[in-house]
Amino acid sequence: MGFTSCFKDMFPGWVATTPVQRSILLPMQVTLAHVGARAGKKDEFDALTAVYLERCSAFARCNAEAFRTEQALLDWLGKQRGRTPAAVLLLDSRGKQLSSEGFAGWLGTRRDQGAQHIVFAIGPADGWSDGARKQADLLLSLGPLTLARALARLVMAEQLYRAFTILTGHPYHTGH
Amino acid sequence: MGFTSCFKDMFPGWVATTPVQRSILLPMQVTLAHVGARAGKKDEFDALTAVYLERCSAFARCNAEAFRTEQALLDWLGKQRGRTPAAVLLLDSRGKQLSSEGFAGWLGTRRDQGAQHIVFAIGPADGWSDGARKQADLLLSLGPLTLARALARLVMAEQLYRAFTILTGHPYHTGH
Repeated sequence: MGFTSCFKDMFPGWVATTPVQRSILLPMQVTLAHVGARAGKKDEFDALTAVYLERCSAFARCNAEAFRTEQALLDWLGKQRGRTPAAVLLLDSRGKQLSSEGFAGWLGTRRDQGAQHIVFAIGPADGWSDGARKQADLLLSLGPLTLARALARLVMAEQLYRAFTILTGHPYHTGH
Repeated sequence: MGFTSCFKDMFPGWVATTPVQRSILLPMQVTLAHVGARAGKKDEFDALTAVYLERCSAFARCNAEAFRTEQALLDWLGKQRGRTPAAVLLLDSRGKQLSSEGFAGWLGTRRDQGAQHIVFAIGPADGWSDGARKQADLLLSLGPLTLARALARLVMAEQLYRAFTILTGHPYHTGH
């Protein structure tokens, strides 16, 4: 049993509030990245995505990143991989379709294999290049429907929260 | 060529603004219905869903309906069917998975077969009863992922708008 779960058993109601507490108790970091930043414009999609990322922050350190180009994202990814063991999931219409339970299983396996940083990325409007696809640990398709990219990002954020609740036995998933 | 398309060819820039103009020029009605009304509470999901329904109103008369129970929805549905030729689509995890193009094809076929009112309905948290399923013209699954119901409703509204743009050759679909 690791330090985190041991600590949580000892102080079940305690919640990490400072960055130092969080970095010790939530060893995994999750980044929701996308290509195609609209120069800082925020809309209702961003607001809802932020709500799910905030909820996810009970389970992992979470942040969002926006990149103007695919290359900028790949450069950033290279630096991240140099720092910590990372896993990369790219949303791709040609990718694998998973159920929410299947996706949670993938996330749990990566976590248990020691991935300290998991990056979920939504590509440019015309899709990922072959070079980007080769860097992915998983190409995930959200299903047969084509979704607006801001909506796909929101669905991804909700699935991430759902996956954490599945892995921890929180009633969010089964309550639906 | 019907009256509507003939009129649109004669006055290409003209947009129907009054209810009477709209009922003549937009003969099809679309209702996005769901079970589980939260007593009039509106959130960001409702706001975004309303944005897509508003966009859809360029192509059909659109409205949203909320029902407290499945039975209330079925009673309402019975009344609608008594008035105009209606088609009913129920969102169902056990339903058929379609691509956005496939869904647009279904919508176009129903329209061409004379359905004047198309109802898209999202069921109660524990799913549709067998009786409700029997009333459906199509059981549609949005894909293998389990989505929060408000999110499924938003995805449905976006797919509806996307379907209309596919049927009319509007660049929204191909631009993504």
